[in-house]
Amino acid sequence: MTERIREFLRNRREDGPCVVVDLDVVRDNYSKFARALPDTRVFYAVKANPAPEVLKLLADLGSCFDTASVVEIELALAAGATPDRISFGNTIKKERDIARALEIGVRLYAVDCEAEVEKVARAAATAGVAASEVKVFCRILCDGAGAEWPLSRKFGCVPEMAVDVLEHAVRQGLEAYGVSFHVGSQQGNTEAWDQALGSASAIFRECADRGIHLSMVNLGGGFPTKYLKTIPQVEAYGESIFRALSKHFGNRIPETIIEPGRGMVGNAGIIEAEVVLVSKKSRDEGEVRWVYLDIGKFGGLAETMDESIRYPIRTERDDDHMAPCVLAGPTCDSADVLYEKEPYPLPVSLEIGDKVLIEGTGAYTTTYSAVAFNGFPPLKSYVI
Amino acid sequence: MTERIREFLRNRREDGPCVVVDLDVVRDNYSKFARALPDTRVFYAVKANPAPEVLKLLADLGSCFDTASVVEIELALAAGATPDRISFGNTIKKERDIARALEIGVRLYAVDCEAEVEKVARAAATAGVAASEVKVFCRILCDGAGAEWPLSRKFGCVPEMAVDVLEHAVRQGLEAYGVSFHVGSQQGNTEAWDQALGSASAIFRECADRGIHLSMVNLGGGFPTKYLKTIPQVEAYGESIFRALSKHFGNRIPETIIEPGRGMVGNAGIIEAEVVLVSKKSRDEGEVRWVYLDIGKFGGLAETMDESIRYPIRTERDDDHMAPCVLAGPTCDSADVLYEKEPYPLPVSLEIGDKVLIEGTGAYTTTYSAVAFNGFPPLKSYVI
Repeated sequence: MTERIREFLRNRREDGPCVVVDLDVVRDNYSKFARALPDTRVFYAVKANPAPEVLKLLADLGSCFDTASVVEIELALAAGATPDRISFGNTIKKERDIARALEIGVRLYAVDCEAEVEKVARAAATAGVAASEVKVFCRILCDGAGAEWPLSRKFGCVPEMAVDVLEHAVRQGLEAYGVSFHVGSQQGNTEAWDQALGSASAIFRECADRGIHLSMVNLGGGFPTKYLKTIPQVEAYGESIFRALSKHFGNRIPETIIEPGRGMVGNAGIIEAEVVLVSKKSRDEGEVRWVYLDIGKFGGLAETMDESIRYPIRTERDDDHMAPCVLAGPTCDSADVLYEKEPYPLPVSLEIGDKVLIEGTGAYTTTYSAVAFNGFPPLKSYVI
Repeated sequence: MTERIREFLRNRREDGPCVVVDLDVVRDNYSKFARALPDTRVFYAVKANPAPEVLKLLADLGSCFDTASVVEIELALAAGATPDRISFGNTIKKERDIARALEIGVRLYAVDCEAEVEKVARAAATAGVAASEVKVFCRILCDGAGAEWPLSRKFGCVPEMAVDVLEHAVRQGLEAYGVSFHVGSQQGNTEAWDQALGSASAIFRECADRGIHLSMVNLGGGFPTKYLKTIPQVEAYGESIFRALSKHFGNRIPETIIEPGRGMVGNAGIIEAEVVLVSKKSRDEGEVRWVYLDIGKFGGLAETMDESIRYPIRTERDDDHMAPCVLAGPTCDSADVLYEKEPYPLPVSLEIGDKVLIEGTGAYTTTYSAVAFNGFPPLKSYVI
């Protein structure tokens, strides 16, 4: 909680839950990444929080942008980024969206299979862009050990196949630019990059044997934000990544980029919500309390899915005795329960109408919210 | 698939996934409910699909409306429903929203604890409405056996407590109107209402012993729509519910209402989507295909959560050989995978750019979609 957010909330008069993002925190996070990895370009993962003010600040600070769609590319441009500072990082793209991005001037594309490479090549022809000006990097699978939210196998191919994918890109006239991976979201292990960098370096060597000289390793995201547990400092990630780069690439360290999203904006945001109901299901001794908020899984807290992310929650009664409760959202959807398998400790004195502050909610909240489920509006966002 | 939807899609030129809802199917569903349960009032669950055209049709047909928020109440009114045909069925309501609903003229409220009863009473005072004109019904827990999506314990209290809750309503000057329950979503067992009606009847008796005469049983929703498995006809539900009512209430059957949502609009809608990518993660024999669509968990198919709802998917190549694939959405979110634990059989000849039709998607799709996740717009909806 920052003094600026506290002050903003003190003066807010509107009804309903909201997230408030403090740009000073984002600025500070950007500096930490830039200092911790001085030779690495930062591509902010726009999907984490695409608020125009956030993008504008980061564009002004010199950040590049990792985008998932044409809309996100347009947002980055509107914030002041030039096309050469934008990567179309989604491995699942419609050919016409690639053509649109090429027309806009974006030249850096993620792929993870030959079919996607062919789409990029065809789109270049459609857009009238020379294939040789278009860079592709191949995403490889990574086991995500140590991450609080290990990724599925949705993105990437096995490292052996990546070499073929990159060679295919060369055959299509594209520039085979490098390799990317993602060590898993909310990665608490600073050493998690080591193994993937070993695979990346093997791909660099195998490609070189085929006459293809790669330039770049995209180290992905995974940098955590603080929820309940302490997390390592960004500096520790920087040091560990640099060690792993030196170990696997020796004195020929390639160009590198990182794509922080959660690590860039997570701790910059606080959600203020309201207790709508506190009740019990029976009069049995030991029956657990249910606490219902005016925000839930469909109102911006989608990452509580499977109780994956456990947010810190503060109330004005935190000095009182605490007891576990089931925490749920306001919709008529029985799946709209935030924490039940592991009930959440909240003050026993918590009452209907009390405000609660949900910390670490600057990332993956606003755009995740349902457009109108149960008639509830999407999460309101203020950037200060 | 109806001929009208087929024709509409044949002529559609816009890009991106969409759902098309055929009002003829909704009309037909309404008639079936009205015929199967002739003495029961139908309160359509607005949250299932709040499209103005759907609400207007149902209002014209004489339906009442079960609403989850003030916005849904306003939608029902705009569609032509009078306030006496609207129930505020969410057990989790802000006191100021109850006051607003009372001002609008809504007189029927769900509760499941004493605190919620007190909110209704206070809101009546605020709104200047006589408490005696305000009806509350108490929701009880129900085990949901037989449902494809059994509900959590989020809504309702144990039956023994309901009597106290209703007595508390009387003490507050409100009318203790009845009991509600929900047998679980996509309930395939037509007998599922029997046990809950037994509990309801016990509450009626216990209340009568305390001098409180209840009038109504809200039988909730749970009526299924057809996905892959065959489901019983609405008539079978009607017969079974009538038998259970007679068994538990004898010749003093109370007023009843049902709240179909999925059963009213589910089979009226079809989503058309596009294959964005087909790929494999390695060259291993037996490696499963991944098929990526331009719609996923955050674009309207939220009910694939935990692979709960398994939609029928049609392609133009369904005569070809089929093989299981992992089916995923288009976002850069690794949780945006529809079917993986149980891969989905699709034609081996399926190609990038092919259209797919996802059936049974008239309910719980449009409003569930994320407002802008990854820059993708919410699901487009056409009602014809």
